[in-house]
Amino acid sequence: MRAVDVIAKKRDGGALSRDEIAFFVAGATDGSWPDYQAAALLMAVVLRGMTAEETAWLTEAMVGSGVRVDLSGLSGVKVDKHSTGGVGDKTSLILAPLAAACGLKVPMMSGRGLGHTGGTLDKLEAIPGFRVSLSIEDMQRALERVGCAMIGQTASIAPADKKLYALRDVTGTVESIPLISASIMSKKIAEGIDALVLDVKTGTGAFMKTEADSRRLAESLVAIGNASGVRTEAIITSMDTPLGRAVGNALEVAECLDVLKGGGPADLVEVSIELTARMLVLGRAAATRDEGAARARDAIRSGAGLERFRRIVENQGGDPHVVDDQRVLPAAPSRHALAADRSGVITGLDAMLVGRASVALGAGRDRVEDAVDPAVGIMVLAKPGDTVSAGDPLLELHYRERSRLDAAMSLLRRAVSVGDEPPARQPIVRAEVR
Amino acid sequence: MRAVDVIAKKRDGGALSRDEIAFFVAGATDGSWPDYQAAALLMAVVLRGMTAEETAWLTEAMVGSGVRVDLSGLSGVKVDKHSTGGVGDKTSLILAPLAAACGLKVPMMSGRGLGHTGGTLDKLEAIPGFRVSLSIEDMQRALERVGCAMIGQTASIAPADKKLYALRDVTGTVESIPLISASIMSKKIAEGIDALVLDVKTGTGAFMKTEADSRRLAESLVAIGNASGVRTEAIITSMDTPLGRAVGNALEVAECLDVLKGGGPADLVEVSIELTARMLVLGRAAATRDEGAARARDAIRSGAGLERFRRIVENQGGDPHVVDDQRVLPAAPSRHALAADRSGVITGLDAMLVGRASVALGAGRDRVEDAVDPAVGIMVLAKPGDTVSAGDPLLELHYRERSRLDAAMSLLRRAVSVGDEPPARQPIVRAEVR
Repeated sequence: MRAVDVIAKKRDGGALSRDEIAFFVAGATDGSWPDYQAAALLMAVVLRGMTAEETAWLTEAMVGSGVRVDLSGLSGVKVDKHSTGGVGDKTSLILAPLAAACGLKVPMMSGRGLGHTGGTLDKLEAIPGFRVSLSIEDMQRALERVGCAMIGQTASIAPADKKLYALRDVTGTVESIPLISASIMSKKIAEGIDALVLDVKTGTGAFMKTEADSRRLAESLVAIGNASGVRTEAIITSMDTPLGRAVGNALEVAECLDVLKGGGPADLVEVSIELTARMLVLGRAAATRDEGAARARDAIRSGAGLERFRRIVENQGGDPHVVDDQRVLPAAPSRHALAADRSGVITGLDAMLVGRASVALGAGRDRVEDAVDPAVGIMVLAKPGDTVSAGDPLLELHYRERSRLDAAMSLLRRAVSVGDEPPARQPIVRAEVR
Repeated sequence: MRAVDVIAKKRDGGALSRDEIAFFVAGATDGSWPDYQAAALLMAVVLRGMTAEETAWLTEAMVGSGVRVDLSGLSGVKVDKHSTGGVGDKTSLILAPLAAACGLKVPMMSGRGLGHTGGTLDKLEAIPGFRVSLSIEDMQRALERVGCAMIGQTASIAPADKKLYALRDVTGTVESIPLISASIMSKKIAEGIDALVLDVKTGTGAFMKTEADSRRLAESLVAIGNASGVRTEAIITSMDTPLGRAVGNALEVAECLDVLKGGGPADLVEVSIELTARMLVLGRAAATRDEGAARARDAIRSGAGLERFRRIVENQGGDPHVVDDQRVLPAAPSRHALAADRSGVITGLDAMLVGRASVALGAGRDRVEDAVDPAVGIMVLAKPGDTVSAGDPLLELHYRERSRLDAAMSLLRRAVSVGDEPPARQPIVRAEVR
C-alpha cells in the first residue's frame, strides 16, 4: 500500500478502506507517513468528507494508537461528559461532583483553553495546589476513593490525535466534522467509559455556528460512540452568549461553587442539571431524565455535590478550603466596569467577543505554549433580556495590566448591544441527538 | 500574512491574491513554508481550482523564483515547442533542426521520461557523446552557432517548480490544470523565448484522457503564455496509439533521422510538419501555416534539416556520424516478435500499454533515479487500420534481458486488438487553441 495512492483515492472522492485508514493513522503517528503526505490527505478529507463508516474506522485507529484504559475492575458505571467548547462553559466542575455523589464513576479527561474558549484544566488549576497531571493508576485510585478524577490527557491516550491535531492546526484542516469527531471520540473511548453525554455548542461563540452543523457533528459523535460500545447521546445547547456570568478561571470556579451551594445563574444551572440527568440515565442511576434531574437537584440541596467537590479537590492536591472560602482563589488586583451608554434592554452579548476579551486579559491563550492568568476575567452583570439604565455597569473586568484592559474593552464595546425591544427568548437546550 | 490563513482561504474556495501566491511560492522554495503547509495548499488547489488570474500569478511567481534567461542580445526570433508527453512522441528531434534550418532560434529545454512517457533528453543521450547539461552561456553560444540548443533544465530555471513538483509527486497533487499549467509555463517563459507552440496530447496514452480536458489545459497554457508576453498557441493531437513506429530511445533517434531524410511514418511526419509550420508562423519566418509547412518540407527535401541535426549533435559533443550510419546508435542484443493470433484488421494499439511495456524493457523509468537502457524498445510493425494475417509480426521487441521481455510481452498482448472492421479514421491533429 502506498501513501500517495490512499491520498489520490480520497482526493477523487473515494471511500477509504479500514486498512487504508489504519495505514494512514499508524504512519502519521510513527512518521512513516511524512507530515506533507498526512497534510495532503487531511485536506482531501476536509474537502471530500468521510462516510460514517470511515469516521468510525478513523476513530478506532486513533484509539488503537495508544492504550484504551481498562476500568472494568472498578465497580460502578463509568460515565463522562464532553463539551465542544464555549465561553463561560464550566459545567464539568458542577456535574462531575453531582454525578459522583449520585453513584457514578466519572473519569474525566479534559483539555486546556485555546482561542476564545476556556478549558477545564485551566479552571481547576485556579484552585491552589490542584494537580491535573495524574497517571492512569492515580486516576483509577481517585475513582475508587472519590468517584471522580479530573485530569489532563496522558501521552498514552490516542497519541495519533495529538500528532494529527498539531498538524491540522497549522494546515487549515481543523474544520471537518469527520476529523473533529474522530479527535473527540478517540480520546473519550480510550478513557474506558461505559457512557458519554455530549454537549455540542451552537452559535457565535461555538465552533459550529449553525444548529444544522451542530446537529451534523452531534450525530457523527453519537454514531461513533454507540458503534464503539459506549452508550452516547448529545444535547445541542446555545452558545450565542456566555454561559452563566463568570468568564475567567478563578471566577468560574467561584460560580460553580455558587451552583453547588444552590445558587448561581439560571442558564448554567439548567444546562448542568440537564447534563447530569442524562449521565445518570445512561449510567443506570436513574430510570428517566426527570428522575435524574431530581437526583441532581437533591445532591445540590443536600450538600452532597459540594462535599464531593471538596473531596475531589483534596484528593488531587488542591486546597479544600476553597469550598468554604472563595478568598482562597486568586483575585485580580483591579476591576473596571463597562457601563451602558444608553437605557434599554440588552439585546445581545456576543460570546465570541467576550471570549476574545477574556483572552486579551490573560485568562486564555492564543497559542498552546502561552501561560494563563487564573485571576483575571469578566463578570457579566447584565444578560440578554435584562433592562438597564444609561450608566449601569454591564460587565466587570478583573484585570492585572492596563494595556490588556484596553484591548479587552475595545472588544467588549462591540460585544454588547442595547435596544428597545427584548430579544426573542430561545431555549438554551435546543435539541437532543440520541 | 500567515500560511494557515492562505490555506484556509483556498480551502473555502476563495481566490488568492497575487501577494498570497507570491508568499506561498517564495515560502515553499526557501522552506519558510514547511512542506506540510505547502502540501495542504496544493491539495486545496487541486480540489478548489484556481482562476486564470491566479494561475498566471502562480506562473509569474515560479518564473521569478529563478532567472529568466535574457536572449534579447541574440539575433532572430526565439521559438520553442513543448509537448505534454506521449508514447513515441519524438517530434522535438525533427522540428528543432527544421525550424533552425528555416532561420529560427530554438532554445529547447526538455525533461527526461517518467512513467509510461519518454523524454527528449533520454532520446538525445542515445547518441554517443551527446551532452544535454549545458550552462546558460553554452546554450547561448549554441544558439548563435547552430541556431538550436537541446538541453536539460538548469537549477537556476524555476527552482520553485522543481521543489513543488517533487512535493506534488508524493502527495497526490499532480492532477490539476492550474498546477500543471504553471509548472510547464514557468519553465518555458524562463527560457527567454518569444514564442511557443504547445502539443497537448489527448487519449489513452496521454496525461489528459479526454479531448475536453486537453482543451482546458491547452487554453490555460495559451492564456498564461500570451499574458506573459510569449506568443503562444497549441494543437491538440491524438495519443491513443504510439506516434510513429519506434518507441525506445535509440530506435526513436533512428526514426527521426528517417523523417529528416524524407521517409518515416506518415503520422509522425504530419505532426512534425504541423508543429514546425506553427513555429515558423509565430516566429515570423512564414506568413501562413501553409507557407510554414512548405518551408518545413523544403528543409527536409533539401537536406538542410538533416544537416542542421548533424551540426546540433556535433556542437553538443555527440557523434555526428549518426546521421550517415545508424549503427553508431546502441542496439539491443536480441529481438522478439509479437505475432497476430488471427487474421483481420488492427483495431487498436494502446499507447499506455506500449509505453508501459517499453519501461518494462528498460527504455524508460518508473522513478526519477532509475537508469534507462538506450538500446531497448519496441517497433510497431502494424498500426491501427493495417490488415494482418494470423502469424504476422505486429510488434518487434528489442530487448536485453529475458525477464524484462516477458514482462513487456504480457503488457503488449493486451495492447493489440485485431478485429474485422477497420477502426474509424480520426485526424491526428484534433484541434487548435490560440
